[in-house]
Amino acid sequence: MARRPTLKDVAELAGVSVSAVSYALNDRSGVPLAEATKTRIRRAADELGYVPNRVARSLQARAARAIGVILDKPLTSPRYAGIVEGIGIGLRDHDLQLTLVPGGAVEAAVEDARGGLLAGLIFIGHDDLSAPPALVAQVLAHRIPFVALDCGERDAPYATVDFDYATGVRQAVAHLAEQQVTEVLYVRPDLDSRAEIQRERALADELSARGDTRLTVLSDGITAEKLETLDAHPGSLADHITRLRTDIERALRASSDPDLSRTAVLCAWGSDVEAAYRAAHAVGGVHVASLAAGTLELDLWPNLFSSRLPLEEAGRACADLIVAEVAGRAESPHLLLAPTPAASATTIPLSDTGGRP
Amino acid sequence: MARRPTLKDVAELAGVSVSAVSYALNDRSGVPLAEATKTRIRRAADELGYVPNRVARSLQARAARAIGVILDKPLTSPRYAGIVEGIGIGLRDHDLQLTLVPGGAVEAAVEDARGGLLAGLIFIGHDDLSAPPALVAQVLAHRIPFVALDCGERDAPYATVDFDYATGVRQAVAHLAEQQVTEVLYVRPDLDSRAEIQRERALADELSARGDTRLTVLSDGITAEKLETLDAHPGSLADHITRLRTDIERALRASSDPDLSRTAVLCAWGSDVEAAYRAAHAVGGVHVASLAAGTLELDLWPNLFSSRLPLEEAGRACADLIVAEVAGRAESPHLLLAPTPAASATTIPLSDTGGRP
Repeated sequence: MARRPTLKDVAELAGVSVSAVSYALNDRSGVPLAEATKTRIRRAADELGYVPNRVARSLQARAARAIGVILDKPLTSPRYAGIVEGIGIGLRDHDLQLTLVPGGAVEAAVEDARGGLLAGLIFIGHDDLSAPPALVAQVLAHRIPFVALDCGERDAPYATVDFDYATGVRQAVAHLAEQQVTEVLYVRPDLDSRAEIQRERALADELSARGDTRLTVLSDGITAEKLETLDAHPGSLADHITRLRTDIERALRASSDPDLSRTAVLCAWGSDVEAAYRAAHAVGGVHVASLAAGTLELDLWPNLFSSRLPLEEAGRACADLIVAEVAGRAESPHLLLAPTPAASATTIPLSDTGGRP
Repeated sequence: MARRPTLKDVAELAGVSVSAVSYALNDRSGVPLAEATKTRIRRAADELGYVPNRVARSLQARAARAIGVILDKPLTSPRYAGIVEGIGIGLRDHDLQLTLVPGGAVEAAVEDARGGLLAGLIFIGHDDLSAPPALVAQVLAHRIPFVALDCGERDAPYATVDFDYATGVRQAVAHLAEQQVTEVLYVRPDLDSRAEIQRERALADELSARGDTRLTVLSDGITAEKLETLDAHPGSLADHITRLRTDIERALRASSDPDLSRTAVLCAWGSDVEAAYRAAHAVGGVHVASLAAGTLELDLWPNLFSSRLPLEEAGRACADLIVAEVAGRAESPHLLLAPTPAASATTIPLSDTGGRP
């Protein structure tokens, strides 16, 4: 690359001192420079294509323009794409950039934040992963602006944003009650994560409060290990769905209530909805609901309900909170965001003409 | 925020000069400092929690660690999530970070690259958007490491990565020929973009070379304006699919060949596949193929073929090329990446039991 023009180059071309250039280009008041001199300096700077070194400016101002977003999940997972998109939109409003920090680069990101290259850090939790204690210790020790998303730490001494999983469960149960459902097959992963524990507890509480609905729990077979495989090989999802569909269909056929119109499959994860829908379709008349949006377009599939997590909203909230922290606001709010209930708007089934493919 | 300890603080605590601290912590050889002095300085630095200011280091070394990725499409679109994920994976291998630059912030990104905050820029094109001339002029004038993805500029004086759309068309036509298809309904957006022109031209060429296959072209109704609406309101996709499905079904029923098993719907866009599949399912026996992967899991839908764009591979290629540019390699390669053909591995239709939901 060509050598970038320096203050000195501008000074030589304009025939003034380096400090005169510095004063003129930074437009500092109180320095006795004639307007003609300032104009000459600015013309010389333009001619040479001089730009003030932003790194140097940042050093002086201690104002990095990027926020590090720590994420160790693929962006190809709609959940994380939605969150990161929301953070990006939120930061844009404040003229801040978003720098992606992979899970393995947390230490470097902390160093960047301490060294002034990142203005703050947002940690995106998932499953049973919360902000690592070593990261939290560093953030607190060095007063790095910090926000933790989906880490379930509402007493933390830093700002947090969490999803209200229990409210999602109540939304789904209320919808199914309206549909006269009295049998719920709950499909959930084999993970003892905070979110799964919250959801299953809320579901048991809600149903026992109602008293007239029977609950059966079915594992979808997703362990932490299997999840890593699915993240690394998205093509293996079809195989997972095919197997799960068989398991769900078997469980539905074993139901004690022969009237399946009062039965619902409730999925903890959006990625299981397609398996549930196919099984429900095969046995006929079963309702499908989920506690997170999957990739099925809700409005195209009849008898489908989703309690959608507010992904973009959560991302925007993280952005707003980190901006407040960067600005030095002392309080650390803990936000709890409720999902949005949405029922399928269509009544047209895929197989409405009985045609065969 | 607390004042960060400076070199001077360390020097005072250690009882040495500031330059001695600077020498000791940067471990410069050739400077006559006793080991005991160095140890004392390092202990003082540890005690105070001093970190060398990375911004200052970056200023000296002119080695920014982030690449700006210019993207003005939502990450919630699987296509762009896949590309950005690939770039991130590629940059990680070189210990580089990825900073997202929204389309409206290109000027600021150029300034950051000139000022040393960004080590280079990657521009992600789409539809009829290529790298803006003003950006290209700046990049060339200031020798900013630059790579353009999917901009169709294979003679450009900078590195480029493009998708080989014509090969994708040939893959789809070859697959449909194997299935004895003699009627192709081509569903494409109302955009005169480079990619659409390339695809339609390749399709006409391939089919006229075969001679035995009839081509009908159907617009999916997506104009540049409608596309913006779909990006801004992802919930409106279901409505688009419902309308398009009706249009495709009508076109299929109007087909001159009563044997629909020799008819295929070929979609230019993955997002249209669900409409095509539903229409094909309604009339029965029709093949569905697409020139880009949609959100339908290929292996779950019978009679489905996709020529998948190598999104992650393209992202990784951009990362490799920008790393080479940052390292000062003079050549500017132009890569053309072919899609991967993939046919559905299942024969189990959704409605295999004739059940009704």
